[in-house]
Amino acid sequence: MDREDQLIERVRRRFPNLTNGLRVGIGDDAAVMAARKGTEWVVTNDAFLENVHFLRKAHLASDVGYKSLARATSDIAAMGAQPRYFLLALALPAACTSTWLDEFLKGMAAAARQFGLMLVGGDTTKYPFVLINLTVIGEIGAGRAVLRSGARPGDRICVSGRLGEAELGLRLVQRGLHKNRRWKNFLWKHVHPEPRLALGRWLADHRCPTAMIDTSDGLSTDLGHICKASGVGAKVFAGKIPLVNVPPELRRMGIDALQLAINGGEDYELLFTVPQRMAGRLPRQVEGIPITVIGEITREKGMTVVDAAGHGKAMRPGGWDPFRG
Amino acid sequence: MDREDQLIERVRRRFPNLTNGLRVGIGDDAAVMAARKGTEWVVTNDAFLENVHFLRKAHLASDVGYKSLARATSDIAAMGAQPRYFLLALALPAACTSTWLDEFLKGMAAAARQFGLMLVGGDTTKYPFVLINLTVIGEIGAGRAVLRSGARPGDRICVSGRLGEAELGLRLVQRGLHKNRRWKNFLWKHVHPEPRLALGRWLADHRCPTAMIDTSDGLSTDLGHICKASGVGAKVFAGKIPLVNVPPELRRMGIDALQLAINGGEDYELLFTVPQRMAGRLPRQVEGIPITVIGEITREKGMTVVDAAGHGKAMRPGGWDPFRG
Repeated sequence: MDREDQLIERVRRRFPNLTNGLRVGIGDDAAVMAARKGTEWVVTNDAFLENVHFLRKAHLASDVGYKSLARATSDIAAMGAQPRYFLLALALPAACTSTWLDEFLKGMAAAARQFGLMLVGGDTTKYPFVLINLTVIGEIGAGRAVLRSGARPGDRICVSGRLGEAELGLRLVQRGLHKNRRWKNFLWKHVHPEPRLALGRWLADHRCPTAMIDTSDGLSTDLGHICKASGVGAKVFAGKIPLVNVPPELRRMGIDALQLAINGGEDYELLFTVPQRMAGRLPRQVEGIPITVIGEITREKGMTVVDAAGHGKAMRPGGWDPFRG
Repeated sequence: MDREDQLIERVRRRFPNLTNGLRVGIGDDAAVMAARKGTEWVVTNDAFLENVHFLRKAHLASDVGYKSLARATSDIAAMGAQPRYFLLALALPAACTSTWLDEFLKGMAAAARQFGLMLVGGDTTKYPFVLINLTVIGEIGAGRAVLRSGARPGDRICVSGRLGEAELGLRLVQRGLHKNRRWKNFLWKHVHPEPRLALGRWLADHRCPTAMIDTSDGLSTDLGHICKASGVGAKVFAGKIPLVNVPPELRRMGIDALQLAINGGEDYELLFTVPQRMAGRLPRQVEGIPITVIGEITREKGMTVVDAAGHGKAMRPGGWDPFRG
């Protein structure tokens, strides 16, 4: 057995061998999945790279394993689909092939169990830095996937959970404050985002949303994606946004909750639009996840944030963009 | 429009917007594919990284674009399936976002046209080196995929094309001889491998092979994969292997055709086994690609190369392994 085989074997042993509709799993040239009647497949791909998306010194290997799979699976939630299979391409320095890899796989296996995902393939390579690439495949009833492109003027804009929590955690890491036990709770969302799978499926099952996306890049950027795809604009009421709770000490350092909520990425909440008549009938929460109406879709292009005094200010996409400056 | 959007738009424009069975393509959270009756999906993932799999100084951007997709699609050929869709995760230095990217996309678009692939999603990030990750999805009649695990004692071992050609090209690059116009023809297979899609489908349609794999890592390693998955051994006749043609001048430098053929990777030929009674009835070539019987599957585990005098020598997996030494 060569060394790559041994490594693949270690990866494989970590993940349970479910067989829901799978004909051929990990270990052949490709996985083979049986198509089920009346369903469609949803496929997404996401890269998670050392020194871009995480730091090996600041983030635990198990958290890297969990978060990389959670991020990728969030796109499945944003379509309203059920996660089924995933492929893991992993590039590793030789120094990471023992303890680091074990911890990483532990975190990823926990995420896979939680989301109902089965590992069906991938690729391993040696590389000076850790590179993770995930392909996640989900299943959904034919024609039920919720796209970005259906928002119409008058639709209400809704969001799950709170916004800015993950960005607050990132700021703590950037300032080296993540080692301070005192801020531990404020780091949670940054290292342990939860794809809103149950909510996404509930919304798709009830044919509620006209458009949906997950907040991976930040409200301003992700709402911009819905507006662009739907050919509409948006008005958001600052006072209605469910904000991250920033303790006074951190506020004094210049950390502003509204800024975190508008431009902070990686919350992986669901941002969706519903027809006005449906907005009033939306439950306040689904499976424990709160839903808040924060604004409305407008015929006029462009996005505006309206403050408590009723003054509107342009909101430009200001979230995460790897190619900006 | 932010910069990542502009980049995605440039990528998107390069690829034709086919719609064979696709509900939602690039530009949403995930692609949505309609499952067709009586078929199964085949999914594979492959990384192609600067300084591991290619050198930006030695390899043209268009060749990198072509080859990365050809490699990944070869796994679809090895199952006997028809390529349909692909996702491209691309990490790029800022310096590569203009001319390099254009050339890269040109090469990849040519490959996509040739293989019948449609781009349906992906991911872009800034990174100090070029990182390419491809997920390729194919379609095949239910139950028709050819696995690695079906080889039985007495089966004949067959291979398409010639072996060692890609490795010869790599050796020329490693010795800096690739700039010499004189060796240009010997570089071709290294930069321009051709997944054996038509042959793979022909074999699957005729239910010929008991096991199949593509020679990505080299004959000794890839035949080892078939043997391991099938629980058998193999005997290969050195004199029957269709060898790369090594000119005398390169032979004098110590480049040995048999060594290239046995341990050289990246030929992306098909290596397959057929029942003995079928071997005689195999055509000599399919769609212009020659097929050669090179050995047979044995009940005894382990692999042997038999020379002209009939002497057997153990053949150990000696092909490409990123984690070896």
